[in-house]
Parts: sequence; C-alpha cells; structure tokens
Amino acid sequence: MPSTSHVERHFTAGEAVRDVVIGMSDGLTVPFALAAGLTGAIADPHIIVTAGFSEIAAGAIAMGLGGYLAARGDAEHYASELAREEAEIRTVPEVEAKEVREIFQGYGLTEEESQGVVAALQRRPEDWVKFMMRFELGLEAPAPGRAWRSALTIAAAYVAGGMVPLSAYVLVTDVPAALRLSVAVTLVALALFGGVKGRLTGVPALRGALQTVFVGGVAAAAAFLIARWIS
Amino acid sequence: MPSTSHVERHFTAGEAVRDVVIGMSDGLTVPFALAAGLTGAIADPHIIVTAGFSEIAAGAIAMGLGGYLAARGDAEHYASELAREEAEIRTVPEVEAKEVREIFQGYGLTEEESQGVVAALQRRPEDWVKFMMRFELGLEAPAPGRAWRSALTIAAAYVAGGMVPLSAYVLVTDVPAALRLSVAVTLVALALFGGVKGRLTGVPALRGALQTVFVGGVAAAAAFLIARWIS
Repeated sequence: MPSTSHVERHFTAGEAVRDVVIGMSDGLTVPFALAAGLTGAIADPHIIVTAGFSEIAAGAIAMGLGGYLAARGDAEHYASELAREEAEIRTVPEVEAKEVREIFQGYGLTEEESQGVVAALQRRPEDWVKFMMRFELGLEAPAPGRAWRSALTIAAAYVAGGMVPLSAYVLVTDVPAALRLSVAVTLVALALFGGVKGRLTGVPALRGALQTVFVGGVAAAAAFLIARWIS
Repeated sequence: MPSTSHVERHFTAGEAVRDVVIGMSDGLTVPFALAAGLTGAIADPHIIVTAGFSEIAAGAIAMGLGGYLAARGDAEHYASELAREEAEIRTVPEVEAKEVREIFQGYGLTEEESQGVVAALQRRPEDWVKFMMRFELGLEAPAPGRAWRSALTIAAAYVAGGMVPLSAYVLVTDVPAALRLSVAVTLVALALFGGVKGRLTGVPALRGALQTVFVGGVAAAAAFLIARWIS
C-alpha cells in the first residue's frame, strides 16, 4: 500500500513538533542576530545580555500568546462553521445537496455520477455535516486543549533556542570572544536543528541544515550592519 | 445561498492579508517590548534605538526567510505528492480506487453508494489525481510565486510594525518621555491592528483589539521586568 506511508509521514510531523519548530526557528535566530548585531555597536557585555534576555522574554510571549490566540481562533471558527452547517443541513437540505453535487462537478463528475453519494449522505445527516466540514470548507476538528499546549510549546522552544547564543555572552565577558563563541555554538545548533527539522518535513538533512544556517547568518549580518550604521 | 457567503469570507482573508497579519503581529509587539524593556535598565536612548533597529532587521529577515522556506517547502511537498499520486493512479489504480472507497466509508457510505463516484473518477485520471490530492491528502495547489511574495510581505509588515514603537525613541531623546510616547502610539496601533485583524478573521473588533493590546502589554511588561532584574 504505497499511499499509506505518505499519510503516515504527515502524522509523524505532528502538532507538537510543528510548535517546537515554530518557536525554535525564531528563538535560535533572532536573539542570536540581535546579540551579534549589538557587538557591532556596543562594547558592554552586560547591555548585550540585558537586551538579549529582554528579547527572549518578549519574543517567547509574543509568539506563545500569538499561537494561543491563533489556535483558539481556529477552534472557535470550527465550532461556528459546524453549527452553521448543521443548521443548513436541517433547514435547507436541498441547497446543501446541490453543494455536494457542485464539489463533485469540480472533478468533472455529472449529477448522475455523484447521485449515489448525495443520496447516501442525505440518509446520514451527522456524516453529511462532517463531509461538508472537510470537503466544502477544508476544516479539520482541532484537538481539545490545543491552544494552551501550543502556546507553552512555542514559548519554551523560543526560550530554549535563545539561550544557546546568549549563554556565550553570560560565560565570556570579553565581547569579541563572546561573539565568536556565540557564532560557533549557534551555527552548530542551527545546523543540527535544520537537519532534524528537514528530516521531519521531508527535506534532505544537509539542505535543511544549510537553510537554517543561512537564515541565521543573514539575519545576524543584517542586524550587525544596521547596529554599526546607526552608531 | 447561505453557504456561499462563508466560503467568500474565507476568500477575503487571503494569503497576502494572512502574511501582513503574521508580520505585523510580531513587528508591533517584539520591538516595542524590547525597547520598553531596555528603558527599565538603560538610560541611553541611542542604545535603545540601536537595539530596536537591530531587532527589527533580525526579526524581519528571520520571519521573512522563514516564510519563504515554509512556502517553498509546501510547494515542493505538493509537487512530490502530486507526482506520487499520478504514478500510483497509473500503476496501481485498484489500490487508489480502494482508497477512494475508504474515504467515503469514513462517512458511513457503503461500497455500492460510492461506486458511482469511484467509476467516474476511474474514467478521468487527471480529475482523479486532483481528487486524491484534496480529499486523501488534504493538500491545495500553492499559488506560483507565493514563496517570495510571502517573504517580502511578512518582512515589510514586520518593519512597518516595528517602526511605530521605535519612532518615539528617535523623536524624543528623554528616555522616560520616549517610553510614554512609545507606549501610547503602540497601544493605539495594536488596538487598530487587532480590530482590523479581528474583522478579517471573524472575531468581534473590540475583542480583537483587546487581544493584541494584551499580548503587546504582557510581552513589554515581561521584557521590562527581565531587563530590570538582570541589571
């Protein structure tokens, strides 16, 4: 069964993994780039550490709460569309039956060819609602409790990512030396993260690693140039 | 036709709007929170402006390139799954026909009831491939050129959002006064943005406004406390 394996691959890269990837992609990149950028303008490691941890707090909360609101919005949207479909199937079943036929017409089927499915759904209103949610609106039922789990996962991954580049400035007080250590450990972390992320999303590991290193490098170079240009 | 209107509502909140929302949500929040946080620890407005613009550069590039890679990944994933479905429908059509019947069995339909659709799809291999992409895998064909458009839209929205809180520190050199101005203009911008975003995503405007103001406020307060605690 060749098709089962690619459905399963979608499954493996589930929602928790997706949230870790979202949080860690930015967490490894933005605090790193900010700290590297500030070394182009500021010689005091204490200010760089202060700015870096402020950014980690702000970024983790902005992304975490943003993820929470997005997930809750999705859940509310699903619930309101579900209530709407249920009402429509109860009150205007002939309109909904026409919509089912139109879905199949989009794939070149005549009314006669789709009639078996239409008639069968009309005999099962609950399955009909599920069918419309998925095939008319393209909506999946969200997992319960998803919003908070998503928020905490994204925020924790952002903090974990941001600690990597910042740790160098905490441990080494000479700013140029701290920058070199920060660049070294963060590029390794970005490469490892990009490789694992690539494997989970079907991108070859080496290419995934090069992509995340490239994004981190470009962001850090831009932050460095902006900071130096302003000073 | 009650159902057409909610399909259209999905349409209005299209991909460009979604990208502006992604970029501006974080762009209005993180540079604001970082700058506000640093005023808890640093009295030099020049350092706050330097850190703020470095963050805007890093955040815009990280989010923009992140959006680019995500969109390109989606496009490549779609293309590879499309090639796979085309090959499977050519080489193992009986397996794919069984999968179509299984999709309908998930909605309580018997083999006889779905037979009309199965037979019709078997006569139209191209429509059959499209049907499997949408209904088996839940994948939509991505718009061509989407990846770069998405990257530039997200990055520009992030920069535009970040300019709002930072402008106060550029215009006013007294840090406490700049902080007050920054908080005032950013809270207004967050409320307006949240209200418009709410209307586009089906959330009442007032609630949308309160949500974005809350996220921005919590992120700024956390950054402020962290910066003060470290100093």
